[in-house]
Amino acid sequence: MRYRIVLATSLLFLLGVTLVSGQTKAAKDAKAIQAVLDAQVAAWNRGDIEAYMDGYDRSADTVFVSGDRVTRGWQTVLERYKKSYDSREKMGVLTFSDLEITMLSKDAAVVLGRWQLQRRQDQPHGRFTLLFKKTSAGWRIIHDHTSSA
Amino acid sequence: MRYRIVLATSLLFLLGVTLVSGQTKAAKDAKAIQAVLDAQVAAWNRGDIEAYMDGYDRSADTVFVSGDRVTRGWQTVLERYKKSYDSREKMGVLTFSDLEITMLSKDAAVVLGRWQLQRRQDQPHGRFTLLFKKTSAGWRIIHDHTSSA
Repeated sequence: MRYRIVLATSLLFLLGVTLVSGQTKAAKDAKAIQAVLDAQVAAWNRGDIEAYMDGYDRSADTVFVSGDRVTRGWQTVLERYKKSYDSREKMGVLTFSDLEITMLSKDAAVVLGRWQLQRRQDQPHGRFTLLFKKTSAGWRIIHDHTSSA
Repeated sequence: MRYRIVLATSLLFLLGVTLVSGQTKAAKDAKAIQAVLDAQVAAWNRGDIEAYMDGYDRSADTVFVSGDRVTRGWQTVLERYKKSYDSREKMGVLTFSDLEITMLSKDAAVVLGRWQLQRRQDQPHGRFTLLFKKTSAGWRIIHDHTSSA
């Protein structure tokens, strides 16, 4: 009888540890993803597009989608950004807000968020859906779908 | 010596079976996802928005993103569709093309694709990123980010 109680208590304890460590892991992953996005915004706002691109997976499969256009491959996405934002004035001041990070598995997550550029002439804004994958380099964007108002 | 060969052969065989069954499962999942999309297109083209909405997870968390707008909850997404496409003429003829289905985990996948509406007055078109989750009802869209040209 006592043996069963000890066993049941141990199992409950193990279940508790598993649940808590699962939560802790998800919270840790969300924090790591948030840090990547914070670093992107900081890089953009000091005019450093290359450092901004560190948030994306350096892969030929990395995809950026906007309007009816798909840009594929880390290098090509970088070139698109450099062409579209070839001055500090065009880059403006970037903010991300209303971020919602959802874990899809141990190594995949989706982030829904709002983006805004504060510029002298205009304030373009919209939403993005980012697919993050845990790579050997850390959490990186493998798929970015961005739309604007 | 013979024992080792038998062991090595068995392990290789098991590895082979695991790899093949993993591929088969992924192929099966991709086929199931493709079937959901085919059913959506068929439903749309017979003017049945409710049946089209069967492709989406019937959850309050289901999200549709377009431009700078986030529509949340299966029911709200349905109402948005019904309002935006309140006649067969507005619905036009839908086609999906250039579909790329990527498995993210056992129960999550992302689909990148191109959409087009053939209508009397215009031919709106663009891209979508769909996040699919394997639910008890089958593969369903939990997150749709759609943009247009």
